Amino acid sequence: MSIDISKLLQGNRRALAKAITLTESKLDQHRDQAQALLEQVLPHTGNSIRVGITGIPGVGKSTFIESFGLHLIKQGHKVAVLAVDPSSPITGGSILGDKTRMEVLSQQENAFIRPSPSGGALGGVAQKTREAMLLCEAAGYDVILVETVGVGQSEYEVAGMVDFFLVLMLPNAGDELQGIKKGILELADAIAVNKADGSNRQLAQQTQRHYQNALGILQHNNFWKPEVVLCSALEGGNIDTIWQMIEDYKTKSCEIGFFEGNRAAQNKQWMWRLVHELIDRRLKQDADSRQLCDQMQTKVTQGETTPYVAAHRIVESL
Amino acid sequence: MSIDISKLLQGNRRALAKAITLTESKLDQHRDQAQALLEQVLPHTGNSIRVGITGIPGVGKSTFIESFGLHLIKQGHKVAVLAVDPSSPITGGSILGDKTRMEVLSQQENAFIRPSPSGGALGGVAQKTREAMLLCEAAGYDVILVETVGVGQSEYEVAGMVDFFLVLMLPNAGDELQGIKKGILELADAIAVNKADGSNRQLAQQTQRHYQNALGILQHNNFWKPEVVLCSALEGGNIDTIWQMIEDYKTKSCEIGFFEGNRAAQNKQWMWRLVHELIDRRLKQDADSRQLCDQMQTKVTQGETTPYVAAHRIVESL
Repeated sequence: MSIDISKLLQGNRRALAKAITLTESKLDQHRDQAQALLEQVLPHTGNSIRVGITGIPGVGKSTFIESFGLHLIKQGHKVAVLAVDPSSPITGGSILGDKTRMEVLSQQENAFIRPSPSGGALGGVAQKTREAMLLCEAAGYDVILVETVGVGQSEYEVAGMVDFFLVLMLPNAGDELQGIKKGILELADAIAVNKADGSNRQLAQQTQRHYQNALGILQHNNFWKPEVVLCSALEGGNIDTIWQMIEDYKTKSCEIGFFEGNRAAQNKQWMWRLVHELIDRRLKQDADSRQLCDQMQTKVTQGETTPYVAAHRIVESL
Repeated sequence: MSIDISKLLQGNRRALAKAITLTESKLDQHRDQAQALLEQVLPHTGNSIRVGITGIPGVGKSTFIESFGLHLIKQGHKVAVLAVDPSSPITGGSILGDKTRMEVLSQQENAFIRPSPSGGALGGVAQKTREAMLLCEAAGYDVILVETVGVGQSEYEVAGMVDFFLVLMLPNAGDELQGIKKGILELADAIAVNKADGSNRQLAQQTQRHYQNALGILQHNNFWKPEVVLCSALEGGNIDTIWQMIEDYKTKSCEIGFFEGNRAAQNKQWMWRLVHELIDRRLKQDADSRQLCDQMQTKVTQGETTPYVAAHRIVESL
């Protein structure tokens, strides 16, 4: 597969799409080529704000992203939308027809929408999304929206690769019905209560107070207090406020060096996770090692040996 | 160091103390001996409820543990108290004199109090506490209280080794002052608002409602809704209620198989964490590997290479 790097750096959409496809390939030679490409474009990456967006199905994520993306484009930004799970509205959109989902955004010159990759590779879907993110940045996209359905494990993955994590909620007094996962509020830099329009407005305000209460209890970064805002993706209400808030976050976190420090830490953490994953893989690929791991795992869970002894035996076999 | 295993299994305190000291030794031959000992007593472990207790300094942890422990002993239980951080009241107690801290409890025949081990070994303090826990169980202690100051990383470690995690809080409307760490509420199976006595009572009730609100938003295990209870360690108020709640938790979680399943999962997770730690160690011990790791880490944090490429180079060097 040949990728024209200069075209990619000029923002050519075809070159970008092709480069992402290359990173998603399962062929070994493509993986090597993709890594070489990524190393080459690396100096041109990072000049963006990376925003994670999560929320359960029905919260209006695609409407929000459409509205938010169009607002950003009007402001002169180039917006890339990436999805990290197969059940995301973007991928869902590609089944139902993207155009019915993000009809206007997908037609914009300055928007690039890419459905979720399939998993399986080292680091899984998160790894591929990270790579797509870098390629989008290299192609000049300065706002990267990484979208995930907040019902699995992927919101943790996304929080670990973005600068700002936005959680969308529905106006709903009985918040348990929203199925908010353990830990998801902890990840939030902001909560947006969507569909705060029409007859929902009062309920939305109640919901806002509710989450303000909850977030008040949780500590966050010392420079940022997570905000709870109302918005209406459908009517465009407060979409600008949310963007201002994210810009404000970027300014503040850059000033104190958190922004760059956080990205460096994310990369470092990711590197070590891949190291461990590669080793686990190596253990699983070798038949003897695999058998030993299975055996040790069984012994440990059945209380026949200690995790300490089991771990030593596994590492000695490497 | 010679340990009399039959004495340990009979509950001899000296044998138990000596066995724990053995696990804490930094000498290689002691480590091997300790692991052999642990494997031998393993069939006699596990017959307990393991309760993690956390809270900031000043919340009254040692008074609570004293009061709670005495209540349990009155009910016929044997109670072991272990600490996981150097700044814990137990260790603090060994400086200030244990007896001024847990005066009555420490004198009980059926109580065993052990200050925090020092870290440094594989798995750190958590590993040693896990080992001490097994030895206490082998010696017949059926309630293990693992105590930690909720200001570091150690509460995550403790939550990963216990059956039930109890967070102590102060009556305080301005809850942010309590310095509750990101994530700590997520770990809680229950919150006890301590010092709910005298003129504090009303404030304590407000605090209770506050946390009930916050916990209501967070989902937990599907069989257990975290409770927020008031208590007074000083006056003994609700200490019995808290124990009943923990027993209730154990019954429910045993019934659905969660109790054993959770312990098996904890052990498995711990084994893999030790595998990864051992490998990181091996990488750091070898001068060439260490240099490569440092170099890769720098390159990754400075954006000169991708985490993927760096991870591969590191693993190839193994």
